[in-house]
Amino acid sequence: MRWSWLLTVGVVVLSLGATALGEMGLEVPEYDGHDRVHHLSAKNYKSVMKRYDVMVLYYHRNVDGSRTATKQLQIEELLAAQVLEDLKDEDIGFALLDAKKEKSVAKSLGLDEVESIYIFADDEIIEYDGELAADTLVEFLYDVIEDPVEIIDNERELKGFNNMDEVIKLAGYFKSEKSPHYVEYEDAAEEFHPFIKFFATFDPKIGKKLKLKLNEVDLYEPFMEESVSIPGRPYTEDELVNYIEEHDRPTLRKLEPHSMYEIWEDDIDGEHIVAFAEEDDPDGYEFLEILKEVARENTDNPNLSIIWIDPDNFPLLVPYWEKTFRIDLGSPQIGVVDVEDADSVWMEMDDQDDMPTADELEQWVEDVLSEDTKYSNIF
Amino acid sequence: MRWSWLLTVGVVVLSLGATALGEMGLEVPEYDGHDRVHHLSAKNYKSVMKRYDVMVLYYHRNVDGSRTATKQLQIEELLAAQVLEDLKDEDIGFALLDAKKEKSVAKSLGLDEVESIYIFADDEIIEYDGELAADTLVEFLYDVIEDPVEIIDNERELKGFNNMDEVIKLAGYFKSEKSPHYVEYEDAAEEFHPFIKFFATFDPKIGKKLKLKLNEVDLYEPFMEESVSIPGRPYTEDELVNYIEEHDRPTLRKLEPHSMYEIWEDDIDGEHIVAFAEEDDPDGYEFLEILKEVARENTDNPNLSIIWIDPDNFPLLVPYWEKTFRIDLGSPQIGVVDVEDADSVWMEMDDQDDMPTADELEQWVEDVLSEDTKYSNIF
Repeated sequence: MRWSWLLTVGVVVLSLGATALGEMGLEVPEYDGHDRVHHLSAKNYKSVMKRYDVMVLYYHRNVDGSRTATKQLQIEELLAAQVLEDLKDEDIGFALLDAKKEKSVAKSLGLDEVESIYIFADDEIIEYDGELAADTLVEFLYDVIEDPVEIIDNERELKGFNNMDEVIKLAGYFKSEKSPHYVEYEDAAEEFHPFIKFFATFDPKIGKKLKLKLNEVDLYEPFMEESVSIPGRPYTEDELVNYIEEHDRPTLRKLEPHSMYEIWEDDIDGEHIVAFAEEDDPDGYEFLEILKEVARENTDNPNLSIIWIDPDNFPLLVPYWEKTFRIDLGSPQIGVVDVEDADSVWMEMDDQDDMPTADELEQWVEDVLSEDTKYSNIF
Repeated sequence: MRWSWLLTVGVVVLSLGATALGEMGLEVPEYDGHDRVHHLSAKNYKSVMKRYDVMVLYYHRNVDGSRTATKQLQIEELLAAQVLEDLKDEDIGFALLDAKKEKSVAKSLGLDEVESIYIFADDEIIEYDGELAADTLVEFLYDVIEDPVEIIDNERELKGFNNMDEVIKLAGYFKSEKSPHYVEYEDAAEEFHPFIKFFATFDPKIGKKLKLKLNEVDLYEPFMEESVSIPGRPYTEDELVNYIEEHDRPTLRKLEPHSMYEIWEDDIDGEHIVAFAEEDDPDGYEFLEILKEVARENTDNPNLSIIWIDPDNFPLLVPYWEKTFRIDLGSPQIGVVDVEDADSVWMEMDDQDDMPTADELEQWVEDVLSEDTKYSNIF
């Protein structure tokens, strides 16, 4: 992770009167101050890592000689302790690895990016490139320990599947979980778990509703109405993995706290098209609808990838964005951001008037993408 | 606020190489360590509070003689400083008030609950009874400084309004914002802002789509398909306030981080019916659909109030709930919780099989509400 981090540390405060006043049910378990975080070294790392099903490893820079950095590391240990305290029944361990002192361990484990969190689970190494906050990290760990493929059994679950339109997801129809084609699918799912959601059904009726032939897998881009069938069924694990890797940058995607830095690094020629819209606000909802329309019409354009940010998901970043981009996030915005220097240009929208139409927005996006416009000149 | 708090403190860590690697746009502003938090006393409180449009006041217990409590207070100051740093352009101040040393100030300000956060804005005192986390509090403060009434101008905004089904909301149709009836409505909105959402339209077409006559106001319960027209239009502010206060406990409501403790305190006879369901999961979505069906059919029953908790919104509380209630939150659950001792009883659901039908769930709820069943016996 290569960013300045917002570190959110969970610490528990027992307020007076919680029990005395006699209402229970929402208490957070108390952090008891015991250090359960492991410090890995060449001597202990193998035995420590063997002890847990899941090991969360914070690969941090050396802090010797810097008072600030030392203090920050202590805060990170607190974060780890809180996460650990929370998850102690789940057999999850937490460890720190000093990048300077323990170079050989990092090499043995195959870690390359200092200031990153790596999660070791079931022979897979997952890099966590999200917000360093206890709640976001714990939620992510819960996803990690879930099965990589979720089964759709009935129509209501199908409705739930259809309702999930903000993520990249796949659905496959197989004869049973013993089918060798399902096993290949499950193996592919492990490669992308938990970032991409894999679903399967063994029920012919559900398969039909999903418009899937036997052993067929469809990929769903976020916010699209139609899925795309992966050609060449039945597939091997490698065929699935290759196809997904070629198609894992959607036309429109939502910035999520658990993967925010990863998405931000996935720019196109050093630029991002960024749209701010608050879904729980009539203006924002309206703008998002227009944006989805534009994305659907341009889903085949490989040069178009828009990041939608709902400011409600990142309240602490709002003042920074408003200042850096010189925009008001009280109303929707769309712009192009240069990731090298955070230079940006934003579409002019009069928030007193109506939103742009889908055509106007599409024209603006086209102008932005063509190299000879006023927009690209500023960079 | 009478609870053990999970205190989430935002502290900023500048990672090496953020600029060197040359990607920008997601940095959080650095916390510079300067203490901008005011300590209120009888001498300074009037002048300090006059300086800000919005004053966030943490009314805390005295910590003299307790090392742990002192440390915790320091962490709370860090939280405050982070929030303040984030909001410094918004003219929001943050202050601490010691409950033991400054009794008279607390009395003058009308504060009665120690360990609470009070927000002073535009002559209103808002008690913040939510999670003590920087992001939740900042998001709440953004809501506080927004206008209490949101105007619906066109059909897409209307769609956004309709999409918002998880909160209590009101919609009114008035001639213009100069209409005296609109002014009464706006005054009523200020009483409930930002907990209840108020909308208005001045456009006859939108008014018609909302099935509103001129000067009429409808109240929308969360998750209901139909709204209820408030009788006796046009209304005075008091009439609106009284009606809303009588109808502000919905049949089904979602637990939100910014008001979680307030909702938890609003029990019926010391009990809550609590349903856990993860909306982003097919099982959870399915269960939620059934739950909404039951709520819609029983919306007129004043003794029925179900709290829906999406575990995704409270990852740090999941282990505590699983332990306290002895349930597995990997699948949906519904139960009755005694808020005095957190005793609880849960509906038996075989997660391998199908979910209960709406009728079965309704029957279970009826059994729970009737006093002579096995469910009520355990308490």
